[in-house]
Amino acid sequence: MKFLTFDYRDHTYYGVKVKREESAWILPKLFEAFGDEENYPKTLLEGISKYHTLDFQEHVRKLVEKAQQSGKADKYKAPFNEITFRAPVTPPNNVIAFGRNYKSHAEELNNEVHSLYVFTKAATSLVGDEETIPNHQDITSQLDYEGELGVVIGKRAEKIQSSMALDYIYGYTIINDITARDLQKEHHQAFLSKSLKGGCPMGPFIVTKDELPNPEQTSIVTKVNGKIRQDGSTREMVLKLDELIAEVSKYVTLEPGDVIATGTPSGVGAGMKPPEYLQPGDEVRVSINGIGTLTTYIGK
Amino acid sequence: MKFLTFDYRDHTYYGVKVKREESAWILPKLFEAFGDEENYPKTLLEGISKYHTLDFQEHVRKLVEKAQQSGKADKYKAPFNEITFRAPVTPPNNVIAFGRNYKSHAEELNNEVHSLYVFTKAATSLVGDEETIPNHQDITSQLDYEGELGVVIGKRAEKIQSSMALDYIYGYTIINDITARDLQKEHHQAFLSKSLKGGCPMGPFIVTKDELPNPEQTSIVTKVNGKIRQDGSTREMVLKLDELIAEVSKYVTLEPGDVIATGTPSGVGAGMKPPEYLQPGDEVRVSINGIGTLTTYIGK
Repeated sequence: MKFLTFDYRDHTYYGVKVKREESAWILPKLFEAFGDEENYPKTLLEGISKYHTLDFQEHVRKLVEKAQQSGKADKYKAPFNEITFRAPVTPPNNVIAFGRNYKSHAEELNNEVHSLYVFTKAATSLVGDEETIPNHQDITSQLDYEGELGVVIGKRAEKIQSSMALDYIYGYTIINDITARDLQKEHHQAFLSKSLKGGCPMGPFIVTKDELPNPEQTSIVTKVNGKIRQDGSTREMVLKLDELIAEVSKYVTLEPGDVIATGTPSGVGAGMKPPEYLQPGDEVRVSINGIGTLTTYIGK
Repeated sequence: MKFLTFDYRDHTYYGVKVKREESAWILPKLFEAFGDEENYPKTLLEGISKYHTLDFQEHVRKLVEKAQQSGKADKYKAPFNEITFRAPVTPPNNVIAFGRNYKSHAEELNNEVHSLYVFTKAATSLVGDEETIPNHQDITSQLDYEGELGVVIGKRAEKIQSSMALDYIYGYTIINDITARDLQKEHHQAFLSKSLKGGCPMGPFIVTKDELPNPEQTSIVTKVNGKIRQDGSTREMVLKLDELIAEVSKYVTLEPGDVIATGTPSGVGAGMKPPEYLQPGDEVRVSINGIGTLTTYIGK
């Protein structure tokens, strides 16, 4: 199941994409028309928080069936070419991100693989698919991309052993961990350089975990203006998904809807010889097999 | 005006403390009884976000007057000895914290003053006044305190010049930036060691800025089990309040209710010879003139 959050006709909704349809079923409308709960979830984050993963999917599946049988399906659907994608969720603890979790990427920047390089990206840096973000040339001359697999947490996680950690995953998304390299070097901590406005594109969907059976063997490809820059696989991750969740939750209590960005493979702009940073007008596309493609435009 | 968030008789409310009263006026109840808005703010964060600072204070002042005149004041008040304090707000972008912003503290830990040592503390690390927090002895043997002035942002702040920055302040609070020193040294980034469960006591109040006319000349005193450990003044800050807001907002968009922890003076446990870290059963009290005292107990 693919969940998304979007703007459509002056409202923000969340919805679900069914198979090959190029539209979203508008879930708040389905809950209102066909649901039996007064306090149905008003946002995707509430849906993830309120229900066990499978319960929510089953619930949504039934609502969509009822809508399909109603003969008024179009009333409850928003075509993708009429919506604006937003980040699917705003995680309760900012986006929690691992640096240097791919050996090849650490090497290209002459960094040691450091298993616990963990920082956050501000909630206000989140944007959705197909967004144009500021070029930030007033504060950086080294704006860079990092295509990453995002893991969405489904239930409160506190000191979880790695053997149990996969149970806490709700699903997956794509993140572009936009970074101002010069600021990252200049500052002692990564938070500011990683939290610029528009600096955390996420989406277009959260794909529930049943639809991505091999998240640790899936390709991540980043293209800038159509040219392949990153061509990696999640199998290169130093800390695997279960270890990432175990490590973070050893220290920090994770909530439903929290998102862990799992690090990026080699091929970032800073690693090229000579470096090639993002320029006004550039188009960046991060694709992960089984999730889709997250496109970001750098403003002119 | 002193705002707070608290639990009382199985509900979470926000409220206001009036002068010397040792109780909170329960604001959602006042809005329901005497307000004229259907969509009144349900949380303090919503109150801060929805209104201009002074409008909200004026609004609240009128509601309290009406309640006082109603002859049923007790119906709308919660005595402090019957409430549990919570962190006044959950900031939209985690708590944004400056390290090394007092020269004396940087020196005691042999660190350089680094103006941009900025990290976040997870929302799930927030607790209120008088809370008992885990001792975390399973993951650290160096749990330490840092008494700090917290600045609460009142309106969206994006690339604000320092000359305008003070306009963006809603008020002030006290923060204890609890830190696992060994983990802080071991990890590359500060987020995890600063975000342990209970690791961000905040409160007891947010004091509106009109009540703290000299926030840059106020004392910060931290006592552990009654003994003075930190005895500093905000006048020692390297970056002043206007500069802190200008620096963060140059990179990150701040929202109403965001909180900046402004750094700590010398006297932390790690700086003592020999170091004295927090132990199970310890009581830590951080006092800031004009705001009050924030007390935290380390669990046994």
